Parts: sequence; structure tokens; C-alpha cells
Amino acid sequence: MTVLPAPAELREAIQNHVLDALPSPERAPRAELAEYARLLRDYPQRGGKTLRGMLLCYSGLAYGAELERLLPVAAALELFQHWALIHDDIEDGSDERRGKPALHKLYSLPLALNAGDALHARMWGVLVEARVSYAVLEEFTRLVDRTAEGQHLEMTWMEGQRFDLTPADYLEMVGQKAAYYTAVAPLRLGALVAGVEPPKVLEEAGMKLGIGFQIVDDRLNLSGDPAKYGKEIAGDLWEGKRTLILLHFLQNAAPAERSRAEALLRKPREHKPESEVRWLHGRILASGALDYAQQVAEQLLEQGMTTLRPALMGLPNPAPAQGVLELLQQLVRREA
Amino acid sequence: MTVLPAPAELREAIQNHVLDALPSPERAPRAELAEYARLLRDYPQRGGKTLRGMLLCYSGLAYGAELERLLPVAAALELFQHWALIHDDIEDGSDERRGKPALHKLYSLPLALNAGDALHARMWGVLVEARVSYAVLEEFTRLVDRTAEGQHLEMTWMEGQRFDLTPADYLEMVGQKAAYYTAVAPLRLGALVAGVEPPKVLEEAGMKLGIGFQIVDDRLNLSGDPAKYGKEIAGDLWEGKRTLILLHFLQNAAPAERSRAEALLRKPREHKPESEVRWLHGRILASGALDYAQQVAEQLLEQGMTTLRPALMGLPNPAPAQGVLELLQQLVRREA
Repeated sequence: MTVLPAPAELREAIQNHVLDALPSPERAPRAELAEYARLLRDYPQRGGKTLRGMLLCYSGLAYGAELERLLPVAAALELFQHWALIHDDIEDGSDERRGKPALHKLYSLPLALNAGDALHARMWGVLVEARVSYAVLEEFTRLVDRTAEGQHLEMTWMEGQRFDLTPADYLEMVGQKAAYYTAVAPLRLGALVAGVEPPKVLEEAGMKLGIGFQIVDDRLNLSGDPAKYGKEIAGDLWEGKRTLILLHFLQNAAPAERSRAEALLRKPREHKPESEVRWLHGRILASGALDYAQQVAEQLLEQGMTTLRPALMGLPNPAPAQGVLELLQQLVRREA
Repeated sequence: MTVLPAPAELREAIQNHVLDALPSPERAPRAELAEYARLLRDYPQRGGKTLRGMLLCYSGLAYGAELERLLPVAAALELFQHWALIHDDIEDGSDERRGKPALHKLYSLPLALNAGDALHARMWGVLVEARVSYAVLEEFTRLVDRTAEGQHLEMTWMEGQRFDLTPADYLEMVGQKAAYYTAVAPLRLGALVAGVEPPKVLEEAGMKLGIGFQIVDDRLNLSGDPAKYGKEIAGDLWEGKRTLILLHFLQNAAPAERSRAEALLRKPREHKPESEVRWLHGRILASGALDYAQQVAEQLLEQGMTTLRPALMGLPNPAPAQGVLELLQQLVRREA
């Protein structure tokens, strides 16, 4: 019978594993490399929820893996998140991350880009040092491949001024960009560390839950508590992100309003008048698009949980299986 | 007795392995992903010398590895070069690569950055699919770590307007940034694929030869044949690179000339007057700094070859061992 580690302890254990894998400023042979170490440790030291790493550990424990063998894989998944966010923030021109300036704003774009590459390599370094199986390594190649593909879709829609997109396009894009690494990969990696071939249901349910997570993220971007959210509120409008909320708003807006919104969204960030962004933000909040999106997220949550519950509750370790379900529920029903 | 594959055939075999590992536009499920596949294939399809992959194969054959097991590792090393160049070109603000616009000029910075990340993941994908040993995977984490560290050094010197640098600083920086992945890693990976623990001499000689290679690269940047070089001539001056040639010139320039050169190098690329860049270029060409640099490169070549020759000629397969030596000689004595 596996005892479920307390969430705070588990989070700290993963976090320590991440930081131990990075160069330390104190041991750097020259001042420039102490700065390099500080760049690499910056996002990891900003904290964060460590949700993906924790989900991976609970899934693995439910499947019978030992925590000791799960921690490096969880740390690698968190390192994935760190380097992907550094590069995302550059790509999206984001100003803030977790309540502080984005890394490329704090240092420079070239240094931040390079630090992201170094963290990417450290992600593989942690996996290789832990001698994880090839199946685990393959899952990591899959999760990076899919995230990059989804990221390309989103960016090319923004650059191409595309407004001919449907909710189905959005769901396909965020399935690749966010849901796979947020929910599918952690669930599957847990099983793989336990030496179990992941059942299909993990991907089916994980996609739904991960998409639900991203929809909530999009909602919080427009209506979250600035103190808790850690990123610029309405940043997605400044950046022109094609979210389910925006697509639903545009679909249901009167023609004049739709044209005005599209004209604004076509402008690059630095040419968007603040008053127009405020106008669009207000119109979206008043339109019911947020409620619609939350309903879709709740539906996905329910469908995902209904699919996943029987698969997990049949496993030998019910306490971590219950931990998986609770964590996934929190992912979709969070306020920050 | 191993028959040495002809260079052109070997190059083509490595190149095919690289392209087979990438998504194809024809099989993409939507137009945006066909574009994504084209982005990923762009630098790999520009050709290039494939020197590092070939060096790796010759080294491996000399140590007794089978070509079939060397090709995926050589392809992964070439993929490293492709993603690193895409990101380098962004970091350095380079306009051209192999005679065409840099990827971020052809598409956009966000799309190019993301394509680089995808190629980085494909590099690991090729290694994992080929089920290479953990020792080979560890060597890849090492080569990315070291390259990123060297890249940080170079960029932070440029951003920090540093001119207090010595030839020893330059040698340390290019050892990390270029020599390790260009010469040390290919030599070591060949041995590792053959299941042989690489002798220390491979790193010692590889560092010298790789630094020699980079010095020649810096020289060609200032005095190469534009038709063959494939990058903007004097691009290093526009970008403010701290090369051995520049450091030697500054060290030996009269005070007034040194101040004028430093004032120019402090300016960001877009504020550098073309006439001043031409002036500095002319002064460097006339100063003898290029001859000095070529002498240093020749010395490094001779020292490296003297160290390496006895180690390689004692191996069971003299033909590929000879191939290694010839290729390394070409690296330092090339004109493009």
C-alpha cells in the first residue's frame, strides 16, 4: 500500500530535483558564467504550481512505480515547462511571467533564448542521468513535437491575420499546444515509469482535461485576479491570441462590432490603442463568452473524469489514483 | 578490414537520414503544418558540408563501429548544427546563412525560434529511435551544455561592451562555443558508438583542431570569397564579434585607431555607419591580424595532428583513421 506524499512535500522534492540539475552561480569559474547560472535558475526559482510534475508522480504511484524513480521524470517535465515558457514569452512578446518581467525583458532576447536552449538540454540531461527507459525518452520527444506543432499553428494564425477559425480549430490547436504536455504526458509518463504500457484512455481523458485546463487559463487571462494570475490581465488581447472565448465572441458579435474588434486584433501589439483594447475587453466580459467557455471546460472536465475514473480506480494504489483525480479537478476549477 | 565509404556517398547517406527524421509537407494534415514542415526542412535542405557528421562516421569506423549504427548519430549531430544555427542567427541578428536569408528573415522570429526547438527535439528523437547507448546520449547533453555556455560568454561580452579580453579569453570561449561540438564530440561519439571509452587524447586534440577551425571561420568572415562563404562578408564586424583577429588588431592598434574602432563596435548593428565598418575592415586586412590568426590556426592544427595521429594510427582500421586526419586537415585549411 503506497502512502501518498503530502502535496507540499512532493512539490518541494520535485523543485529540489530541478534546481539540483542546474549550474550554480557559486561554483561558476568566471563572473559571466555565474550570470549564466542565474539566468537558467530564474524561471525555476519563481516557483509555480508544479502541477504537471505532481500529476506525473501521482499517476506513477497509482501504477505502482517508486517515487524515487518518478522524481527525475517529474523534474524533467517541469524543466520542459520552464524552457518552453522562456521561448513562448519571446515568441508572444509577453512582458510578464509569474508576476515578474519575462526573462528576455530582465536580460535580453539573445541571452534568454540561449538559456531556454540550455534548459532544454538539461531536461534531457536529467532523464539520461536517471537512466530512464527508452519508452520514457520517446514520450518526451512526442510531447515536445506536439507542443511545437501546436505553437506553430497558433502563431501562424496570428501572423496570418486569420479570423476564419472555428471552435474545432481552437480545440485542435490547444490539444497540441497545451493539453498533451499538461495532462496526457504526465498521465502516460507515470504509467511508463511503472513499466506499464499506458492504456488509450489516458490520452483520451487527458486531452479533454488538458483542453479544459487551457480554456480556464484563457478565461483567467481576461478575468483573473491580477495579484494571483502573475501575467498581464488581457495580455491575450494585446497579443491577439485566438482563444475559444474570442472566437465565440466574434462569431456572435454584431457585424460592426466584429469589424472593429478584427481591426484592433490585426494591429501589432505596439500599435494597439489602449482604449480599444479596454473596449474589446469590456465587450467580451459583457458578452457571455466567458460563461460559454467555462461551460465547455466543465463539460470536458466531466467527460474526462468519467472516462478516467474507472481506469484509475481499478489500480492497486487507490490513494494516489484519487490524488490524480483531485489534481485534475483542481486544474479545471482553479482561480489562478 | 573496413572499406571507407566515398565522401559524397557518406554525405548523402547522412543527409538522407536527417531529412527522413523530419515531417514532410506532402503528408501534413493541414496547410499550416505543411508550412511547419517546410520550416523544419529549410536549413537541412540548404546543404552544407556535413563535416561533423562525416568526421563522426570516420572516427567510429576507425574504432570498429558499423556504419549503420553511426549514421543516426551523425544525423543527430547535423540536426544539432541546424537548430543551433537557426537560434544563433536570431541571437546574432544575422541576415544570411548559406547564401540565403536566415530563417527568421525568411519567415519570422517566432516561427523560426519554434522551428529550432522542434529540430532540437528531433535530434533527440533520432537518437532515441536508434536506441543509442546512454553514453552517447550523455555526450549529446554535454555538447549542448558546452555550446550554450560558450554562446553565453560571447553574447555577454558583446552586450557588455567588453574590450578587456585577451586571446586566452577568446580561446576559452570558442573552445566551448565551437570546438567541442565541431571536433571533440564527433571524435568521441565515434568511439562511443563502437563501445570504446574515448581516450583523453581525443578531447585534447579535438579542442586544438576545433579552435583552429573557428579561427579559420573568423578569417573567412573577413576575407573569404563571397560566392563560396555563404554569409555576409565582415558580418562579424557588423555584429561586434570578439574574434582573435579583432582582439589582436585592437591590441596592436595606435590609441586613436583603437578608440575609433571601439566606438564603432559599441554601436548596435543598425547604428553602425557603413563607411566606418569599411574603414575598420580595411584596417584589419592591412594590419597583419589575419596572418597572425592563420599562424595560430596552423600551430593548433600541427599540435592537434601530432597528438592525434599516433592514437588513431594504432587502431584496427587504418583507412577511416586516415580519413579522420584528412578531414581535420581540410577543416583548418579550407577556403570556404
